[in-house]
Amino acid sequence: MGPTLGSSGASDLFQLLRDGSPRTRAELAMTTGLARSTVALRVEELMSLGLISPVGDAQSTGGRPSSQFALNPSAKVVLAADLGATHATIAVTNLSGTIIGEFSGPIDIADGPEAVLDWMIETGRTLLRERSLSTADVIGIGIGLPGPVEYSSGRPVNPPIMPGWDHFDVPGFVRQHLEVPVLVDNDVNIMALGEQAFAWPQIDNLIFVKVATGIGAGVISGGRLLRGAQGVAGDIGHVQIARGAGIACQCGNHGCLEALASGPAIAHSLAGLGLEVETNSSVIELVRRGNMDAIQAIRQAGRDIGEVLTACVSLMNPSVIAVGGSMAAVGEHLIAGVREVIYTRSMPLATTHLTIVQSAAGKNAAVIGASILAIHHALSPEGIDRMAL
Amino acid sequence: MGPTLGSSGASDLFQLLRDGSPRTRAELAMTTGLARSTVALRVEELMSLGLISPVGDAQSTGGRPSSQFALNPSAKVVLAADLGATHATIAVTNLSGTIIGEFSGPIDIADGPEAVLDWMIETGRTLLRERSLSTADVIGIGIGLPGPVEYSSGRPVNPPIMPGWDHFDVPGFVRQHLEVPVLVDNDVNIMALGEQAFAWPQIDNLIFVKVATGIGAGVISGGRLLRGAQGVAGDIGHVQIARGAGIACQCGNHGCLEALASGPAIAHSLAGLGLEVETNSSVIELVRRGNMDAIQAIRQAGRDIGEVLTACVSLMNPSVIAVGGSMAAVGEHLIAGVREVIYTRSMPLATTHLTIVQSAAGKNAAVIGASILAIHHALSPEGIDRMAL
Repeated sequence: MGPTLGSSGASDLFQLLRDGSPRTRAELAMTTGLARSTVALRVEELMSLGLISPVGDAQSTGGRPSSQFALNPSAKVVLAADLGATHATIAVTNLSGTIIGEFSGPIDIADGPEAVLDWMIETGRTLLRERSLSTADVIGIGIGLPGPVEYSSGRPVNPPIMPGWDHFDVPGFVRQHLEVPVLVDNDVNIMALGEQAFAWPQIDNLIFVKVATGIGAGVISGGRLLRGAQGVAGDIGHVQIARGAGIACQCGNHGCLEALASGPAIAHSLAGLGLEVETNSSVIELVRRGNMDAIQAIRQAGRDIGEVLTACVSLMNPSVIAVGGSMAAVGEHLIAGVREVIYTRSMPLATTHLTIVQSAAGKNAAVIGASILAIHHALSPEGIDRMAL
Repeated sequence: MGPTLGSSGASDLFQLLRDGSPRTRAELAMTTGLARSTVALRVEELMSLGLISPVGDAQSTGGRPSSQFALNPSAKVVLAADLGATHATIAVTNLSGTIIGEFSGPIDIADGPEAVLDWMIETGRTLLRERSLSTADVIGIGIGLPGPVEYSSGRPVNPPIMPGWDHFDVPGFVRQHLEVPVLVDNDVNIMALGEQAFAWPQIDNLIFVKVATGIGAGVISGGRLLRGAQGVAGDIGHVQIARGAGIACQCGNHGCLEALASGPAIAHSLAGLGLEVETNSSVIELVRRGNMDAIQAIRQAGRDIGEVLTACVSLMNPSVIAVGGSMAAVGEHLIAGVREVIYTRSMPLATTHLTIVQSAAGKNAAVIGASILAIHHALSPEGIDRMAL
């Protein structure tokens, strides 16, 4: 990674203003080390792009008051898509990641990339039209997919539940219709970004755990999403747990976390007790009705997840663990199991300031994260230079 | 983190040249987007600081050949210190992290910070004098300590084996003697940096595991060392393992990795078999002599470490795990145990390109890492600006 080499001073300034805090020209000059005259020119440039606006006057220190400038979040919009196996959400957001229009509906990811992405683009255009916006207002598109993605190319890699998508050039296809940067990542990574943006903007070390049909994590460390060597960082669903001995997993191994603590695994164990459960939502319904077996099973799933997360806490030293995904909708029972194990087993220094909570962004974590992914890219120094052309 | 806001174009150029590859002015202009005339001025500035030098001529594409420039590794030096509980190494390195002078000797970290750091500074001065260098040639100091360090302030935080060091201002004290940037981190973090610089310069995702009296890890992800919220990322010695039920650990908990797989734990288990072992080195000696019990114990320790690392592999998706520390000197037996468990338990995509090896930097990993820490800081854009004053 390393420092940005771009030379556009306008984007240097903009990096400062992106946080939304208003600053004067003098403050910008002091922080960047640029000459006052240079700052003045560059502020003009960003104003002409519409990306920053004057926001009232700074407290006077004697003499005439100085104008302050800040990000103008409604200058442009991004399109954000959360494409799941059977359900999708498409949203239009402003430059702060706030949703200003949204559509959710059933899809079948197995229809293949052309059909699904065509639908996504059409839905996006409709959302824009409904808000009197056009594609010219869009500065980027963020897409979350339910499988591993090579982030640098935006191509899915051996996605198990996405027939026809393997190595498909998602950004290339979308850009045939909308000539803007297209960022693609897996659903859990964008949920981590969304959760952070929505609920923990000041937190640099966060693990988001999705518990649904599968189990996975998105890891933000030192303010950055970790992707790892093959882009599969956070794939904790197939770590073996103590209780798992002999229990077969779909992956071909035994004792995986997912084989014991995912929605289908819990449903399967409850069915074995004679309860009528087939789906994740029937498990949640049982828990809501106060069924003791279901509550016990969910609590134990939380402990299993906590067992794997204990090693993650030691390795990463996060300050927040947020648990989301459809199975987190059972309320505190799942989280209680996670907390029980992590707080019992971890070193005091690592847990003194550790918060373990249910996802606050909830169902919107993914679209917000997809939006953030696109915004970060579009408003990077390179992105600004591109816009200024 | 985010991009660097420094405005000195000289440092922008220098970021490019730091990798040691020679480049022409035209190449520098193209990559940075700076004007040719600006590049020429800034090349002069870095030359006058002695940080870059001309290195022969580029292949001519017709017309007269263009001069190339590259980092001049011997322009300046850094002091690097690996301060252990009972032993220390002080080194002088060039700007590539290559050791050009070194001294190792016994210390007692419990003598307290003033005594130990005074000795460190005197030893550094002697090393410099012996090589006809002076403190004016030193552009930074890197120090590794055997306990948790708050990286931003360089202060140890509740270090268990360092009486008198808690919250001591290490950089402030050292700078009373040598007015250069002083960077301080824990020993395992700097060993990870040293191992990467020495053996894996192209690798961005690496976990270094130190196995000695304690067990800890240094984690590099996306090219950056992870420190976590309280600076205790990598503290994996107290993750509980399946085999550990009921075994008490010094930390007050039960079944910790360190209570089963550290040097003292192995020595303790072998003593229980009637063997005469007290120290880490007596365990290593037994393994070298082919004692079957000792080999079995080391192999099992490797499996225990592998159990914890399996979760780390899923979370981080590293491409290299390097095992170092005094217990790694037993050769392949320890690594074989680590490999056995990780390759059995992890998902194929995460292990296809995963290399698990003994540390190549060996005993020098820590001083090389301390040197790299100081070099990165001193040669950052802010560091260069400071030098140019």
